[in-house]
Amino acid sequence: MSFNRFGRVLNITTFGESHGPAIGCVIDGFPPGVAVTPEEIRASLLRRATGRSRHTSQRREKEDVQVLSGVFDGTTTGTPIALVVYNTDAKSKDYTRIAAQFRPGHADYTYHHKYGLRDWRGGGRSSARETAMRVAAGALAAKYLDQKFGIRITGWLGRLGELECDANFVPESIDDNPFFCPDPARVSALEDYMDALRKEGDSVGALVRASASGVPPGWGAPVYAKLDADLAAAMMSINAVKGVEIGAGFDSVAQKGTEHRDEMTPDGFLGNQAGGVLGGISSGQPVTVAVAFKPTSSLRLPGRTVDVDGNPAEIVTTGRHDPCVGIRAVPIVEAMLALVLLDHYLLHRAQCGDVPPQTPRIE
Amino acid sequence: MSFNRFGRVLNITTFGESHGPAIGCVIDGFPPGVAVTPEEIRASLLRRATGRSRHTSQRREKEDVQVLSGVFDGTTTGTPIALVVYNTDAKSKDYTRIAAQFRPGHADYTYHHKYGLRDWRGGGRSSARETAMRVAAGALAAKYLDQKFGIRITGWLGRLGELECDANFVPESIDDNPFFCPDPARVSALEDYMDALRKEGDSVGALVRASASGVPPGWGAPVYAKLDADLAAAMMSINAVKGVEIGAGFDSVAQKGTEHRDEMTPDGFLGNQAGGVLGGISSGQPVTVAVAFKPTSSLRLPGRTVDVDGNPAEIVTTGRHDPCVGIRAVPIVEAMLALVLLDHYLLHRAQCGDVPPQTPRIE
Amino acid sequence: MSFNRFGRVLNITTFGESHGPAIGCVIDGFPPGVAVTPEEIRASLLRRATGRSRHTSQRREKEDVQVLSGVFDGTTTGTPIALVVYNTDAKSKDYTRIAAQFRPGHADYTYHHKYGLRDWRGGGRSSARETAMRVAAGALAAKYLDQKFGIRITGWLGRLGELECDANFVPESIDDNPFFCPDPARVSALEDYMDALRKEGDSVGALVRASASGVPPGWGAPVYAKLDADLAAAMMSINAVKGVEIGAGFDSVAQKGTEHRDEMTPDGFLGNQAGGVLGGISSGQPVTVAVAFKPTSSLRLPGRTVDVDGNPAEIVTTGRHDPCVGIRAVPIVEAMLALVLLDHYLLHRAQCGDVPPQTPRIE
Amino acid sequence: MSFNRFGRVLNITTFGESHGPAIGCVIDGFPPGVAVTPEEIRASLLRRATGRSRHTSQRREKEDVQVLSGVFDGTTTGTPIALVVYNTDAKSKDYTRIAAQFRPGHADYTYHHKYGLRDWRGGGRSSARETAMRVAAGALAAKYLDQKFGIRITGWLGRLGELECDANFVPESIDDNPFFCPDPARVSALEDYMDALRKEGDSVGALVRASASGVPPGWGAPVYAKLDADLAAAMMSINAVKGVEIGAGFDSVAQKGTEHRDEMTPDGFLGNQAGGVLGGISSGQPVTVAVAFKPTSSLRLPGRTVDVDGNPAEIVTTGRHDPCVGIRAVPIVEAMLALVLLDHYLLHRAQCGDVPPQTPRIE
Repeated sequence: MSFNRFGRVLNITTFGESHGPAIGCVIDGFPPGVAVTPEEIRASLLRRATGRSRHTSQRREKEDVQVLSGVFDGTTTGTPIALVVYNTDAKSKDYTRIAAQFRPGHADYTYHHKYGLRDWRGGGRSSARETAMRVAAGALAAKYLDQKFGIRITGWLGRLGELECDANFVPESIDDNPFFCPDPARVSALEDYMDALRKEGDSVGALVRASASGVPPGWGAPVYAKLDADLAAAMMSINAVKGVEIGAGFDSVAQKGTEHRDEMTPDGFLGNQAGGVLGGISSGQPVTVAVAFKPTSSLRLPGRTVDVDGNPAEIVTTGRHDPCVGIRAVPIVEAMLALVLLDHYLLHRAQCGDVPPQTPRIE
Repeated sequence: MSFNRFGRVLNITTFGESHGPAIGCVIDGFPPGVAVTPEEIRASLLRRATGRSRHTSQRREKEDVQVLSGVFDGTTTGTPIALVVYNTDAKSKDYTRIAAQFRPGHADYTYHHKYGLRDWRGGGRSSARETAMRVAAGALAAKYLDQKFGIRITGWLGRLGELECDANFVPESIDDNPFFCPDPARVSALEDYMDALRKEGDSVGALVRASASGVPPGWGAPVYAKLDADLAAAMMSINAVKGVEIGAGFDSVAQKGTEHRDEMTPDGFLGNQAGGVLGGISSGQPVTVAVAFKPTSSLRLPGRTVDVDGNPAEIVTTGRHDPCVGIRAVPIVEAMLALVLLDHYLLHRAQCGDVPPQTPRIE
Repeated sequence: MSFNRFGRVLNITTFGESHGPAIGCVIDGFPPGVAVTPEEIRASLLRRATGRSRHTSQRREKEDVQVLSGVFDGTTTGTPIALVVYNTDAKSKDYTRIAAQFRPGHADYTYHHKYGLRDWRGGGRSSARETAMRVAAGALAAKYLDQKFGIRITGWLGRLGELECDANFVPESIDDNPFFCPDPARVSALEDYMDALRKEGDSVGALVRASASGVPPGWGAPVYAKLDADLAAAMMSINAVKGVEIGAGFDSVAQKGTEHRDEMTPDGFLGNQAGGVLGGISSGQPVTVAVAFKPTSSLRLPGRTVDVDGNPAEIVTTGRHDPCVGIRAVPIVEAMLALVLLDHYLLHRAQCGDVPPQTPRIE
Repeated sequence: MSFNRFGRVLNITTFGESHGPAIGCVIDGFPPGVAVTPEEIRASLLRRATGRSRHTSQRREKEDVQVLSGVFDGTTTGTPIALVVYNTDAKSKDYTRIAAQFRPGHADYTYHHKYGLRDWRGGGRSSARETAMRVAAGALAAKYLDQKFGIRITGWLGRLGELECDANFVPESIDDNPFFCPDPARVSALEDYMDALRKEGDSVGALVRASASGVPPGWGAPVYAKLDADLAAAMMSINAVKGVEIGAGFDSVAQKGTEHRDEMTPDGFLGNQAGGVLGGISSGQPVTVAVAFKPTSSLRLPGRTVDVDGNPAEIVTTGRHDPCVGIRAVPIVEAMLALVLLDHYLLHRAQCGDVPPQTPRIE
């Protein structure tokens, strides 16, 4: 069972290190007959890319994605789609001083203990650079879901540290600011907050939310292929994630059953505490997730650590880092949501076919 | 890719419905040479069983587990371990009136739309009765982890609705009360709360926490086989779960990097915000999870719904139900934690062998 | 990745030992809405069962199959179908003398070296008793394929040792004799041969052939999910199999390209050297396989071996054995063919849907 | 479950088309700490490459393999190893005339019916060009097996059409001639045969044999993860393969049990009819396979076919083709044997650990 692959019938395998020659992915099981261009994949990559504003890392990758296989005459053929992006702006020498030290809160220590060696340049395989490939693959999945079902996937920044971002929700504003903030009135507060944080040299966590509307009922399966279980794994596999919620999430701990159960009428459900998933299977309501991102541990503020020989050391992480990795995570969360949904559509189609059973449906 | 199976090299496949003839599981890939008796599996099952106190469902199953294969002369042989428990106290006629209705907050509606038919007796496959098999399999995994590594897995009730349960943590008390509450001083408050709730006819959510100590560093893998990603899926696959946290979880949203990163000294880590996992790989610190359970939707308080023909209906769920499913979920969360850890140990051993690399290790 | 499971989206997990309490299987991913009765499964089991004639082992199992889950009101629900058959005629004490010896040509030696212990009663997990569950699962698959596509699967004995059995092919005769021999004129020769063999105390190999007609084009996939690759694995996983051919098989070694390539006209292919598979994908022609079964090694004629301490020993295998395991293998080969085909139909449907592309098709 | 991936814990995913920009693979789960250079991989690729003699296709690829990830400072890190080879000598216009026709004996027809479209340039994904990546991955596996266990894997041409090649077996000669023929006395006969065949415009089949010595007992597992079942799938997944044998293979059909069973003494087995596998698990004897390759169907001799509109057509395949694809298949068979063995070693280590049980062992 593969380490760097996910999906049940739609399989995404990624490869590459932050400062290696390239990153890439293989998308296997994607339906044939879908128009795909490198330009549209690259457009998705640029939404996630660093260097778009002063609030993210200043590494500037061209994200010139090459399609190495699986697309012929601009159309997917059903064979594996391979994408590769060569790294062009890696500055490995920023990292030489930490080659023999473990950065606190990083995977340095655990990779070293697992494998006995590690690619320390920019975090190697544990770098968030890998997530670019999730976004690339997600772009294809989202396009298919939109065209076939009208499914729309929207992600946004729910909180930046202690600042709430979505009390006022204006979807069209999300892409108008560098924070994926849906409330235009909050943008200047976020800018001030981030400017102060950068000056301070510290980092902060974030909450990312996403929703998929238009998902038909019936996707997902008992018991270990639950749609929400796969979403939880997909989200938790993103770098820096520490928590995942579906629907009411942790709020449901304090709820009463009469409050949580979404009653139904012929006109539809009367609430969506469930987050669009009942018994692991989509209900037809929007699928909603919330994802907690920890603050990055790559700080120029010194910290205590040990070196590879076990001696105490003080560490200062230079290099170019995001003071809040959660910001750029919005397109990643969207991508994972799209990929899990498409995988589950295909899995559902395998067992139950394309024609839904003849039952009355509410939404 | 299987629907009712989980695990990467240790594979657990479960089967059975709440009111079908039996439930069971097949455990494939378990190491040979481990002593196993039906009695110790049954003892685990009884911790999760209903009917132990007035605060849970009154269904009383004997949980007489049969070992159908994989154990010879009291020892695992390396071949698949099959367990079966015949259902002896199912009362299906309690459910006949809901055969044609969808219970709000239940999987009735989604199963019906997925498959075009459903086993409506007691929730069929979507019933929490399935989780008994997780506990059975988890008992074997926990035993192996304890004997080989001294790993200890402890779960407890963190909150019951709005009541906090673990401000004062006395591990020995957990099994002394029907709530798996670690604070003996809180037990009478919990009893009062549950008695009132039962009278009211409503249900409530709960927070379950668990911790595994003694886990060696190096278990887990990049990128989609992260230990925390598999834990998230395992927990979210449990009935009624709406959220999962590792370590600081959603608290990390508001944390600064200097606060969250667990600094290191030759004497060990200076905190465990990470919850024992860095970059998806165990660090040697305790692995900690928190799991949110929603309130059950099976209530005798009437609710609005539709029937299978799409007509409006009022529903009252009789049958025997837990007013708080989170209570009995404690052994289930422990079991899933044990199973994911053992799976990852075996997966780690596949790639990297049993001998850890010669590197200094802090804990 | 599971040891005792096969299939890609249709997953069959089997369990049980020859002389353990029971054998069984879990069929996961089977389509909902299919009528299934224990009686029809048992009828399939009896075709494979021992004790039907003097030419097979005299062990007589009732094969009373229980359906433990996945079927409600006589119809598959889409949830896992669990089957169990309790063993009722195992005579373990026949085997006590070989508990400390390795039977030549058997899995005794290899299980012992793999696991450090083994269930020596009747071969334990390595016994062909396991194949009963393949036949049970195959019965469901064959029914579905027949009803949905009119696919007909036929297996027969191609050779018994040096005796050819299918020069004259009368399909209706296959089930009229205990050898699954399609040539009624050869049956008495087979009986004489087997009677002599039994007297001699020796065993012999066999060739089993099978064909599936009515398979639509397009099932199978590049490159490692080829229909023929999965068939090869499925057949080679049957006890005692040493070789597998698709279409012309080993004859193709000496063929010229002009002879092997099946030319096409608007009326169809002009030959079927390919065995119904081109590039790993079904062509619409009959899918044909041939499977070589070795002679069983359980003989009452003494042989040289070693015991578990490494000392030389002479071994005589008593117990009840088939002098030619290939005979009863015919229903097993049919079952594996049905299961692989159904798995590939579902896999194809996942990626490409149910509606075939609008292209001219020849057959 | 992936289409273009194989392996249980060692996962190989390949991508790329014959005339696309590149072919490549991702090797996931490979042990860390193994020295790897692009040069040694390329050396393996050149053994399989076309254009080495007049007896194979004249396409000349540089096979300049790039290592895109998973190797740091010349050593595997445990993260996914990605290899890519850009195609430099594809001549797609040779194929334009067959874009609208189906070549008999090719995957053209089946891909078209499966996907509704196909990359017709050079066979696209169905081309044997894909097998280069098997050889690349196999080079790493073979190196590991050799260094850790002293396992030696040798493949050779057993038959070329009707010519037997290995009656006299001189292993050192295998790489001294363009046919991988182990009998130096047969080489000139093979050259004459191939020259005549080329003149004729026809093609012929071949038999490839391979053996792995030094495999410890205990690799493989019941029941569907049998070593021989996985070998059968691995071999049958190679382009043009129509049959696979383990050990005595189809000869075992006519054998008696006393002849087939390999008796044992403290000095070792007295034969190897089993081909090194008993009950799906390695016995410590050499693992032996034989693989039947059909004659290629790409011939300049005209043949009858249909076009994509269903009209009759005459086809002549130009382009550069091997008159006997079996010749260059020798390194591919070796590679698949190495990969399956390494996968099974890792799988065995997962369940049973590295230390074999303390039992007497014969070889």
